[in-house]
Amino acid sequence: MNVVRSVQWSPSGDAVRIIDQRELPSRLIERNLHTVEEICDAISTLAVRGAPAIGVAAAMGLAVVAQDLARGAPANFEECLNSAAREIRTTRPTAVNLAWAIDRMLARAKLTRGGPSEIAAAMRAEATAILEEDRAMCDRIGVHGRRLLPHGARVITHCNAGALATAGMGTALAPVYRAAAEGGVARVYACETRPLLQGSRLTAWELGRAGVPVTIIADSMAASLMHRGDVDCCIVGADRIAVNGDVANKIGTYALAVAAHHHDIPFYVAAPASTFDAACPSGDAIRIEQRAAAEITGAAGGSIAGVDVWNPAFDITPASLVTAIVSDVGIHRPPYCFSAMS
Amino acid sequence: MNVVRSVQWSPSGDAVRIIDQRELPSRLIERNLHTVEEICDAISTLAVRGAPAIGVAAAMGLAVVAQDLARGAPANFEECLNSAAREIRTTRPTAVNLAWAIDRMLARAKLTRGGPSEIAAAMRAEATAILEEDRAMCDRIGVHGRRLLPHGARVITHCNAGALATAGMGTALAPVYRAAAEGGVARVYACETRPLLQGSRLTAWELGRAGVPVTIIADSMAASLMHRGDVDCCIVGADRIAVNGDVANKIGTYALAVAAHHHDIPFYVAAPASTFDAACPSGDAIRIEQRAAAEITGAAGGSIAGVDVWNPAFDITPASLVTAIVSDVGIHRPPYCFSAMS
Repeated sequence: MNVVRSVQWSPSGDAVRIIDQRELPSRLIERNLHTVEEICDAISTLAVRGAPAIGVAAAMGLAVVAQDLARGAPANFEECLNSAAREIRTTRPTAVNLAWAIDRMLARAKLTRGGPSEIAAAMRAEATAILEEDRAMCDRIGVHGRRLLPHGARVITHCNAGALATAGMGTALAPVYRAAAEGGVARVYACETRPLLQGSRLTAWELGRAGVPVTIIADSMAASLMHRGDVDCCIVGADRIAVNGDVANKIGTYALAVAAHHHDIPFYVAAPASTFDAACPSGDAIRIEQRAAAEITGAAGGSIAGVDVWNPAFDITPASLVTAIVSDVGIHRPPYCFSAMS
Repeated sequence: MNVVRSVQWSPSGDAVRIIDQRELPSRLIERNLHTVEEICDAISTLAVRGAPAIGVAAAMGLAVVAQDLARGAPANFEECLNSAAREIRTTRPTAVNLAWAIDRMLARAKLTRGGPSEIAAAMRAEATAILEEDRAMCDRIGVHGRRLLPHGARVITHCNAGALATAGMGTALAPVYRAAAEGGVARVYACETRPLLQGSRLTAWELGRAGVPVTIIADSMAASLMHRGDVDCCIVGADRIAVNGDVANKIGTYALAVAAHHHDIPFYVAAPASTFDAACPSGDAIRIEQRAAAEITGAAGGSIAGVDVWNPAFDITPASLVTAIVSDVGIHRPPYCFSAMS
């Protein structure tokens, strides 16, 4: 199974190598990020995206910067390092994984005895650990989630929670890749995911490249496909999971869950246990970010006089519509209570 | 209420004046169609679209051609007229209204005594009758359907079944315009309607222009909007209605009906009684046309190697999800049985 690697060390080890997702699906361009500017630019322009992938890229990026600084061995090494960390952290202020990864890297730096070169070496080891842990997390979701897919499964997914969103083989797509490697997947239906089309641009591309049979549909076609009997289960990722099992994920996830419920089709959510938010009792507590109207009207030729747009970035799928939640810890079934997990 | 007129006689009366829908929503361009070529081109390139509007434009176009022919008074008048009729009829082979309108025009020609100028005059009268009947049909749907909308209604619709699809004020949108004229519509949500975006390009444009408060959403957002309690009812058009009340309409209609059902929101279909097909016992008998993959992949930057596309033009909403069907004849409620109507 030729699963794409969206974040890794460059062959020489002195840079973070990413797939530039702005170029997909037209062209597969890999870029080596060497400097703070290159790292910040890649994260802020969505060349690298997906919460886990951003965290990993940020950690590795800071390690690269530390190595570079150590080579010059300036008197203000620590100051320069903190400044770079601040810059990287603020590229996407709401990305929890990004702040978490940077904090972890700085903590490791602080705990390391010795001069700049010892600190840089320790940070590189820490970044590699974060990278490997992310891959292992994906693998474990794959192992657990695999059990949910019937042989010859026809699976539908929304947005991109695949290899392009993590350093490993994805969250929602990990069980799919694992089953596909054993010949257990008949077809994946990728909802195109308006407005930003992560499904048709990213999910379909990475599955097609790995040799998994994949079909793109418009989001509004999912219910018809289910009615035809062509879907065995749904599997999607999550941005945040409340204590009661309510799931915040890309807009359109809720519509898919409602359609699955109507057709009595299992609806699975796959996400790392770090997605469980013990401070969030239910989906009602999650604020939904509104995005620019142009994301919607752009496709229709621009804004129209006297016409309004509603463009929420994500929606809440109530726990009652979620058959099971797969994490790296295992399979969770209702009634959900995730407060004890974190 | 400034409802747009998509098909009418040109001021001088020697041409069919249409709104060129290929230019919407960026520019409002009206075109006068004088010749067979111009009429066929307008229909085949979707400058004029929507089954009722196509039928009306075809009938009026044939009358214009007959008038032109009569002016020259050639010996082979009838032959030229039949040839023009054939050409117009084949521009969109599956459009039932188109064939019906052309047949009706030729029948009138055949029944008329006298030479080319008498025939041309009779055909012009017949085309005007078809135009007026279409407008009256819309008005009656508006009168009946108005009763279904609560005061201050927040209505959601899919695709375009409005003034741009008919010669009058539309089918699904007729009750909306009528209620809005009395201040009875708080907001219309227009699903953008992937892949061809008739909702954002056409429905939002014509409602905005008429001063009706309108908000565009991506199709996958409709369920979330319902969950928030922001939708009082759905109203959509129909391409064909089976004897048992199953409804064929633009892809995405079924998903909207499923979401409405889940949220206990009334789901209404509005269509002329000519849409009832007594030869079609149920939705199972309706063949679903597949359209080009590029309609889907175009938005994502083109086709992707190894990736398939499913792109049905419409779907079937079972009668069990349809709260009521509004036609020019009245309001129909379940159990539906439309064989006696036609």
